Amino acid sequence: MSPILAILVVAFFLYCVTTSASDPDPIQDFCIPNPKFGSTKTAHLGSLPCKNSSEATTDDFVFSGMKGAGNFSDTGLAAISVNPAIFPGINTLGMSFVRADLKVGGYNPPHFHPRATEIAYVVQGSVYAGFVDSTNRVFARVIEQGEVIVFPRGLLHFLMNVGDKPTTIFGSFNSQNPGLQKIPTAIFGSGIHEELLEKAFGLSPKQIEAMRRRFNPKRVK
Amino acid sequence: MSPILAILVVAFFLYCVTTSASDPDPIQDFCIPNPKFGSTKTAHLGSLPCKNSSEATTDDFVFSGMKGAGNFSDTGLAAISVNPAIFPGINTLGMSFVRADLKVGGYNPPHFHPRATEIAYVVQGSVYAGFVDSTNRVFARVIEQGEVIVFPRGLLHFLMNVGDKPTTIFGSFNSQNPGLQKIPTAIFGSGIHEELLEKAFGLSPKQIEAMRRRFNPKRVK
Amino acid sequence: MSPILAILVVAFFLYCVTTSASDPDPIQDFCIPNPKFGSTKTAHLGSLPCKNSSEATTDDFVFSGMKGAGNFSDTGLAAISVNPAIFPGINTLGMSFVRADLKVGGYNPPHFHPRATEIAYVVQGSVYAGFVDSTNRVFARVIEQGEVIVFPRGLLHFLMNVGDKPTTIFGSFNSQNPGLQKIPTAIFGSGIHEELLEKAFGLSPKQIEAMRRRFNPKRVK
Amino acid sequence: MSPILAILVVAFFLYCVTTSASDPDPIQDFCIPNPKFGSTKTAHLGSLPCKNSSEATTDDFVFSGMKGAGNFSDTGLAAISVNPAIFPGINTLGMSFVRADLKVGGYNPPHFHPRATEIAYVVQGSVYAGFVDSTNRVFARVIEQGEVIVFPRGLLHFLMNVGDKPTTIFGSFNSQNPGLQKIPTAIFGSGIHEELLEKAFGLSPKQIEAMRRRFNPKRVK
Amino acid sequence: MSPILAILVVAFFLYCVTTSASDPDPIQDFCIPNPKFGSTKTAHLGSLPCKNSSEATTDDFVFSGMKGAGNFSDTGLAAISVNPAIFPGINTLGMSFVRADLKVGGYNPPHFHPRATEIAYVVQGSVYAGFVDSTNRVFARVIEQGEVIVFPRGLLHFLMNVGDKPTTIFGSFNSQNPGLQKIPTAIFGSGIHEELLEKAFGLSPKQIEAMRRRFNPKRVK
Amino acid sequence: MSPILAILVVAFFLYCVTTSASDPDPIQDFCIPNPKFGSTKTAHLGSLPCKNSSEATTDDFVFSGMKGAGNFSDTGLAAISVNPAIFPGINTLGMSFVRADLKVGGYNPPHFHPRATEIAYVVQGSVYAGFVDSTNRVFARVIEQGEVIVFPRGLLHFLMNVGDKPTTIFGSFNSQNPGLQKIPTAIFGSGIHEELLEKAFGLSPKQIEAMRRRFNPKRVK
Repeated sequence: MSPILAILVVAFFLYCVTTSASDPDPIQDFCIPNPKFGSTKTAHLGSLPCKNSSEATTDDFVFSGMKGAGNFSDTGLAAISVNPAIFPGINTLGMSFVRADLKVGGYNPPHFHPRATEIAYVVQGSVYAGFVDSTNRVFARVIEQGEVIVFPRGLLHFLMNVGDKPTTIFGSFNSQNPGLQKIPTAIFGSGIHEELLEKAFGLSPKQIEAMRRRFNPKRVK
Repeated sequence: MSPILAILVVAFFLYCVTTSASDPDPIQDFCIPNPKFGSTKTAHLGSLPCKNSSEATTDDFVFSGMKGAGNFSDTGLAAISVNPAIFPGINTLGMSFVRADLKVGGYNPPHFHPRATEIAYVVQGSVYAGFVDSTNRVFARVIEQGEVIVFPRGLLHFLMNVGDKPTTIFGSFNSQNPGLQKIPTAIFGSGIHEELLEKAFGLSPKQIEAMRRRFNPKRVK
Repeated sequence: MSPILAILVVAFFLYCVTTSASDPDPIQDFCIPNPKFGSTKTAHLGSLPCKNSSEATTDDFVFSGMKGAGNFSDTGLAAISVNPAIFPGINTLGMSFVRADLKVGGYNPPHFHPRATEIAYVVQGSVYAGFVDSTNRVFARVIEQGEVIVFPRGLLHFLMNVGDKPTTIFGSFNSQNPGLQKIPTAIFGSGIHEELLEKAFGLSPKQIEAMRRRFNPKRVK
Repeated sequence: MSPILAILVVAFFLYCVTTSASDPDPIQDFCIPNPKFGSTKTAHLGSLPCKNSSEATTDDFVFSGMKGAGNFSDTGLAAISVNPAIFPGINTLGMSFVRADLKVGGYNPPHFHPRATEIAYVVQGSVYAGFVDSTNRVFARVIEQGEVIVFPRGLLHFLMNVGDKPTTIFGSFNSQNPGLQKIPTAIFGSGIHEELLEKAFGLSPKQIEAMRRRFNPKRVK
Repeated sequence: MSPILAILVVAFFLYCVTTSASDPDPIQDFCIPNPKFGSTKTAHLGSLPCKNSSEATTDDFVFSGMKGAGNFSDTGLAAISVNPAIFPGINTLGMSFVRADLKVGGYNPPHFHPRATEIAYVVQGSVYAGFVDSTNRVFARVIEQGEVIVFPRGLLHFLMNVGDKPTTIFGSFNSQNPGLQKIPTAIFGSGIHEELLEKAFGLSPKQIEAMRRRFNPKRVK
Repeated sequence: MSPILAILVVAFFLYCVTTSASDPDPIQDFCIPNPKFGSTKTAHLGSLPCKNSSEATTDDFVFSGMKGAGNFSDTGLAAISVNPAIFPGINTLGMSFVRADLKVGGYNPPHFHPRATEIAYVVQGSVYAGFVDSTNRVFARVIEQGEVIVFPRGLLHFLMNVGDKPTTIFGSFNSQNPGLQKIPTAIFGSGIHEELLEKAFGLSPKQIEAMRRRFNPKRVK
């Protein structure tokens, strides 16, 4: 296989994962990307060609990778986001899901998903959860095991374990790739011009500098 | 309030629940039907006028009615289907969900949802689960606690508790009203002409009669 | 052309037919798959690259393959399903169609299309036709030449020629690939676990075995 | 019933027919407008409240009004356009259809449907039919009984009976209200400023006047 | 008109504005809410019944209310957001728009529109503009008169007039109601639990208190 | 690179531009076609593979090519249509736009966009503008600098500079490829059978011949 061909094939895979990524009604039963044509370790696994449907197996439609919690970050959150890149069987089917575990006191900061509504089910524990609407009203309270909260499409929401036991949440989305923007890092860790941040948040240059150091230590020399 | 007005109001409510029932992108943050304008006991609660968004409360977005199992049918299944009729906060948001509990040996017969893909998460227990594709292949196996199976939009699927403990499933859908057709009752309990059923299934008139008695005792004199 | 390139090309074609298969609004006038890049005999013709639109001809948009009835199966049905695989010109346009002929006494057993509503027009003859709704009610009667019946998206429906002449139906769909699940074969010919079928339909192991032999003789040793 | 109430009810009906008119996926099995709440003679029948689904009957889903040709206009065309206003059962299901009969020499002038693709099936006779694409190429030829032509969404198309027998066409659309703009009347019968028409078509004021007299005799004093 | 009827009418209007608010393909040419049935001063004007299309006038489709800048806030921004509530003619057509003027040094803080992509055209002046993607990368630079920048659906973006003249922007959206969440007020002015904010942003209780005082002086006693 | 590979690569590019061209909700932040894999001079630039999102730059999302008017045609119109072929950054985002300049007396003849609503903003000058609805009513008047007119999806519309200064319009669309059919050329310059045109417009063969010579001199021998 020549180098130029290899480049073209990779380009094709990268291309398809993006351009065919959309959540309309499916027009076939399913479409499982074929792992033979690319590494399952890349973020773009979803872009591989589909398996011939006759080669699909039951295991393609069962996800077993979230029986336990994922790796905890220093915010006390362990999230396993399951989209077609790690569960190819859901490709083109318009849904994805997440397992989120929170240590006691752990939290998921205000964030939103640009392309989906989320249904969050409390598997165990209890959690302070809520969202903010377009009029800047907050809808939040502590929810318990067995309860469900809905976060409407695109609205800011957040979670914090205020109980004395670990919490497990199962969240599902009506997009195969809902997207995610976490406010602290997206605002202070992304490189927006400091003057704009100072004005927007009423913070001093020194305070903005501290925020940047916290949320994007790499970009602050 | 005059009788004719009452009729018109009811008609309006019935009308709106159906005509506005669709799963496009929402164009407002949310729309909670207003229970002041109708009984919450009817199937059409979802058709009531929206609350003014300033009257919405956190409780409108939290569902607490499935902390425990629902009522078990004689198939050993207890299903709590949560759509806008019983959880108004999800109205217009393009999702709904279900809690299904299966006794040991209990089952959910082959059925399908005409308008949604389903993501089913095993909260506890284990279950034989699967679906059939358009080429009449079955994709099925036993799945365990913590595993997830996907049932693609509109395809026949089924569940059976083959373990020795009760099973709890949390299922979510990418439609606020996915619909449901259970094959045994839809076919043998609906009143399709017996001659067609005899031919289609290769059963004798007596056998068809027995099926009808089982799946729709009311219609069989 | 090297073997690996050939594989990649085939993979690409297989891939594209599935991932790009969706029924959103089109964003170009039309997209005719180019038969130069693959055999028109495969099920995946639709995955071939598009013709340059300047090479499209009138014949690409006219289908002439259903002037007469198709081949009759032993149920007395001859169906010619026309989707982009055999009529490339409709690719991406959100519609497909079918010609169904029924001999006297012939039938199309209960089935459904997961991804489309169907409009069925009786070109000649008369036919017992109907569908079942989510509450297990049947809506069925004999319809005559020149009448039209609608089968709502995803609902079970069926046809049987109860007249004394052959019947011809022209059906159209609002998806380029509506899908199809025929109940007898999808249930009894697909390999669903016999215990589940016995319970679900209240049939004995022997009866289930007979059904399997009828609807999938290959799988029954 | 008081006058103000009557006005409100009418307003409601007018309103609903327009605002709820859209072709997303349905979220219920069907929604038949209830004729008890309005005259079936108005163009806005579709805006009436839905029947309770338990009151729906088989006849609601069968259309019997096009067994024969409609009334012929002076262009030799008789078209029966079937949308929810005259066939309530298709409301919300995303499809509609038309029967078009053409006398020998009759024609349907260049027109387009802003909101749908059309599949046209020749039930009898033969017809010169075609469409124009965005690059101003015409795709047209004579099609015969049993053939099907597709007119892609929103593109100009036309029909003319060039045979020596009457022609009958069954057309179906992937919108419940595809819309229609006929070029001669939309351009010359609508009241566009004459100066613009003169420039656009290179016609003299006198010629434009003649066109207006032909296509909108009422507006020309 | 009785009080109860009045309430029902209002409820109907409030209801319809929300439930019919969605951006699917339209199924009629247009739908102009009828101002006779409600005050044009309310936020819910869009919920009024449609005008009979024969009563629509040209002025219904022309918006004249943004020939000049709107009222400037203390951030130096004057925005006129044009949606169906103030320009009824665009109801159901899937688009809306905004005129934004920025004084020298004025800014629009980081915000996002949950339901639309935005195309922003610089009518005069120059502006530092950009957005943040899901990987927390910022795409921003100064854009000049005549240039256009795109803000992808649901992603955080911002503007600041860094020139020495006033700036005017014309922005358009592919939703009739794109929604808006401005980060500083949505986060610090909405009432999210202070503990969560302290943890999420690494700020002291005193700092959080200062932010709240700045962004929601009413809620801080 | 072998010739056959080259052909396949080109075919792939041609194919993807058409089949992946659709306007559903995006499922990724953005998708910029990669210019390394094809000439930016072809109409099919949009079909190139996406850039790896980490290689995207701010300039990919800013369009600078319409600071001044485009080239004027002999109708006094200069239009710069901006779609993904010339502004790759908007690919998959569901919008596109146009700058139209009209000399004094210049015009844009009746035309329509099959796949989009248009919002037209008058940047400078004044223009007679309007559209025709499905009932052949025209909605038109002169609009001034700072005013906005909406042309509903798929309806015929037109512009003519009736002032004494040049006019500049900024139009935006809710499709990345709205399409365009200009009536004079689509009807008289496309090759529709002359007999049909004569009948449809009531013109003599000689008059039709003159129209064809004007609107498609190449096709008239």
